[in-house]
Amino acid sequence: MDRKKAIQEMKQRVYEANLELPKQGLIKLTWGNVSEVDRELGVIVIKPSGVSYDIMKVEDMVVIDLEGNLLEEDSLNPSSDLATHVVLYKHFKAINAIVHTHSMQAVKWAQARRDIPAYGTTHADTFYGPIPCTRQLTREEIETAYELETGNVIVETFKERAIDPLACPAVVVYGHGPFTWGETAEKAVLNSIILDEVAEMASGTEILNAKIDPIDSYLLDKHYYRKHGDNAYYGQK
Amino acid sequence: MDRKKAIQEMKQRVYEANLELPKQGLIKLTWGNVSEVDRELGVIVIKPSGVSYDIMKVEDMVVIDLEGNLLEEDSLNPSSDLATHVVLYKHFKAINAIVHTHSMQAVKWAQARRDIPAYGTTHADTFYGPIPCTRQLTREEIETAYELETGNVIVETFKERAIDPLACPAVVVYGHGPFTWGETAEKAVLNSIILDEVAEMASGTEILNAKIDPIDSYLLDKHYYRKHGDNAYYGQK
Amino acid sequence: MDRKKAIQEMKQRVYEANLELPKQGLIKLTWGNVSEVDRELGVIVIKPSGVSYDIMKVEDMVVIDLEGNLLEEDSLNPSSDLATHVVLYKHFKAINAIVHTHSMQAVKWAQARRDIPAYGTTHADTFYGPIPCTRQLTREEIETAYELETGNVIVETFKERAIDPLACPAVVVYGHGPFTWGETAEKAVLNSIILDEVAEMASGTEILNAKIDPIDSYLLDKHYYRKHGDNAYYGQK
Amino acid sequence: MDRKKAIQEMKQRVYEANLELPKQGLIKLTWGNVSEVDRELGVIVIKPSGVSYDIMKVEDMVVIDLEGNLLEEDSLNPSSDLATHVVLYKHFKAINAIVHTHSMQAVKWAQARRDIPAYGTTHADTFYGPIPCTRQLTREEIETAYELETGNVIVETFKERAIDPLACPAVVVYGHGPFTWGETAEKAVLNSIILDEVAEMASGTEILNAKIDPIDSYLLDKHYYRKHGDNAYYGQK
Repeated sequence: MDRKKAIQEMKQRVYEANLELPKQGLIKLTWGNVSEVDRELGVIVIKPSGVSYDIMKVEDMVVIDLEGNLLEEDSLNPSSDLATHVVLYKHFKAINAIVHTHSMQAVKWAQARRDIPAYGTTHADTFYGPIPCTRQLTREEIETAYELETGNVIVETFKERAIDPLACPAVVVYGHGPFTWGETAEKAVLNSIILDEVAEMASGTEILNAKIDPIDSYLLDKHYYRKHGDNAYYGQK
Repeated sequence: MDRKKAIQEMKQRVYEANLELPKQGLIKLTWGNVSEVDRELGVIVIKPSGVSYDIMKVEDMVVIDLEGNLLEEDSLNPSSDLATHVVLYKHFKAINAIVHTHSMQAVKWAQARRDIPAYGTTHADTFYGPIPCTRQLTREEIETAYELETGNVIVETFKERAIDPLACPAVVVYGHGPFTWGETAEKAVLNSIILDEVAEMASGTEILNAKIDPIDSYLLDKHYYRKHGDNAYYGQK
Repeated sequence: MDRKKAIQEMKQRVYEANLELPKQGLIKLTWGNVSEVDRELGVIVIKPSGVSYDIMKVEDMVVIDLEGNLLEEDSLNPSSDLATHVVLYKHFKAINAIVHTHSMQAVKWAQARRDIPAYGTTHADTFYGPIPCTRQLTREEIETAYELETGNVIVETFKERAIDPLACPAVVVYGHGPFTWGETAEKAVLNSIILDEVAEMASGTEILNAKIDPIDSYLLDKHYYRKHGDNAYYGQK
Repeated sequence: MDRKKAIQEMKQRVYEANLELPKQGLIKLTWGNVSEVDRELGVIVIKPSGVSYDIMKVEDMVVIDLEGNLLEEDSLNPSSDLATHVVLYKHFKAINAIVHTHSMQAVKWAQARRDIPAYGTTHADTFYGPIPCTRQLTREEIETAYELETGNVIVETFKERAIDPLACPAVVVYGHGPFTWGETAEKAVLNSIILDEVAEMASGTEILNAKIDPIDSYLLDKHYYRKHGDNAYYGQK
């Protein structure tokens, strides 16, 4: 496929993924963004900043190189969170799409500054272990290069805890909100839907049982590997 | 009716029951399944595994014998929870349909590892006593035959507590989620709707009154038998 | 107007009021009923028992005299809660319509066995003081004449506390759920909507401030009498 | 533009802003109102009192001078909260539109008599600091000039705490509910949507972490000034 056509198809997918988020109740107003990367082409496509979903068009999607530079003339401003996406693509080589939202249930955990524990199999079906909450950014990080450092602190979180970003395709950023990702834009959006669902389940679980512990590792293993890896047996071939 | 036509009608009912669940807000994505059994025909019909509801067709329903063996060529993979359904049909002779969901309110109780107490008449109208939560599966049960043992632990719960599965047509599985059942697929789906409703009511009741007890047995009796048994007087003849 | 036409119009209003409840999210399945009385005609019209809303027709509405006897041949069974309605009409002379639901937020208070305190002006705009919760019915009351005694305990609650049923057109029945009423079916339905809204507000208020007290009497007075009585100045003339 | 045409356009905008509120789930029944001021014309346009949204027409909007006097013959009664709007326009010179609702999440904080703390960046994107709750009105204030004093206590709150009304375009009134405002009717409605969203986030945050503190001032600064003031870089030019 030629480069032009490939970029056009990226724009179409990123556009559709962005529209899916308010439809799923995960985004109010313009609070969120989806991007996709094609590392061979050296291209990231991302939502423009602050454009309302009901007037946004496929052509409004912004094309950027892997360092975050605009590649098209008369381009709209990219999402203000672009630098976060660029850092994540640089360090998480297996992911090709990122979703950021302020979805209600995940934001509650981000604001509470807590990991989301794996309290059940719905969680384990998608997230292999707790969904981490990053540490607080320092004043200097915030004032110097906020969006870049947001990416860095996510990467740091996964490195320090030795979490595989594909095995736990979500994070909540301290005081802010969730980022999810995946091998495709469609999967990144799915992970965003599932994150909000398990975030609500976890909160309700604690209300019903204040002393609850995460599920045992063998139940986590069972459910996660029922759906992932070579021995997965969920779904169709 | 001939066998072929009977199976075709089972497929239609199971298909429709499956579609009703996301419509009622009880299922996100592909998280759930409905099956029906015809013991005379020796046939179970169940949802295929991981197929999206918007592309699923009547013909995709999977036909199995009472031991869980596929009966049709080119069949899709059955729901990964099939073995649970098979065990339940084997031991609960009065039920002809089973529903499994990850519905929000019931999952909270499953994850909290608690029975849902009968706090009011909405509960008593359908469930004669608390809705039980199973014990935890052992590591060996999980690693050896997870879905089968899930069925076994449900059966064990009802036997040990001497609960009639038709008098309490629902269970929450420890750390996982709810199963409901009934004499027909329509009733099993209804019980799934009611379960989530009473699960939410019960949770909210505890928030308003931390020291609440279940309702008295005579109020439970009154409401349950107003709708069930020979002296029922709710509804039309 | 002749009697036949008047009854036909009652049926139409009761039918429409019943349909409004699931539309407003206050009723799941068949859990509720609306009735209207015309004391001059000596007629009550009420929803039939257990009939699904999507197949219910105007003609299905059941016509009864003020003692609860069926007045039409081939009538469907009236709502099983009819006896409660009959008692309320007998004692609350100013009301002409009654609504019973199992609406989520009001049921939580009924199950928690608590009055709903007047925590704000939304409450005071419609309910002059706390919405009372009845005492528990005795075993004998439940086993002898359950629905009749449900009516009696509501009347007892309002008499003992000296509450004017029009000044507080709602009650939650211990362990069961809400009844609301009004001068017309439309108002009784409105009160049902408002009850569920203020029930949710009150619950959320306690979560945010565990030591909250009801609003002061002069704020209650101000809001209630802004909308009710000779000096009301809300709305159009 | 001539005066007549300008007023007609105000009516159209106020009408549309009013309709947006129930559509957004922020208003039940007739519980709310929007107004707009044009200080050069000396005109306020506000919703009529207690008129149902499904029959309300553009022409029903009520035209008033800056002291609250009706300017058109055969005018409907203005919203009973008009005097509150008049006071706010008098003291908050930078605002041109006001929204009052009884939206669920904000009312919970008003009834709990608490400021809404800034627990995250969703809050900081719009509100520069906690959203204040007013003090309680005195008995005399309530009985003498309730709606006027409601305006006065809002103004007092912002003056005493030295809050710029445009930097925090919302308040919750003790025991009552929220008012929001903005430079346009569209912005005032947006602020109303955002207020309810951050109110729910804050409540859920406290449930997950009872000892949570507001975010640090430099994160608040970063997010607020990313969207506001000369150095804003969110959105398109």
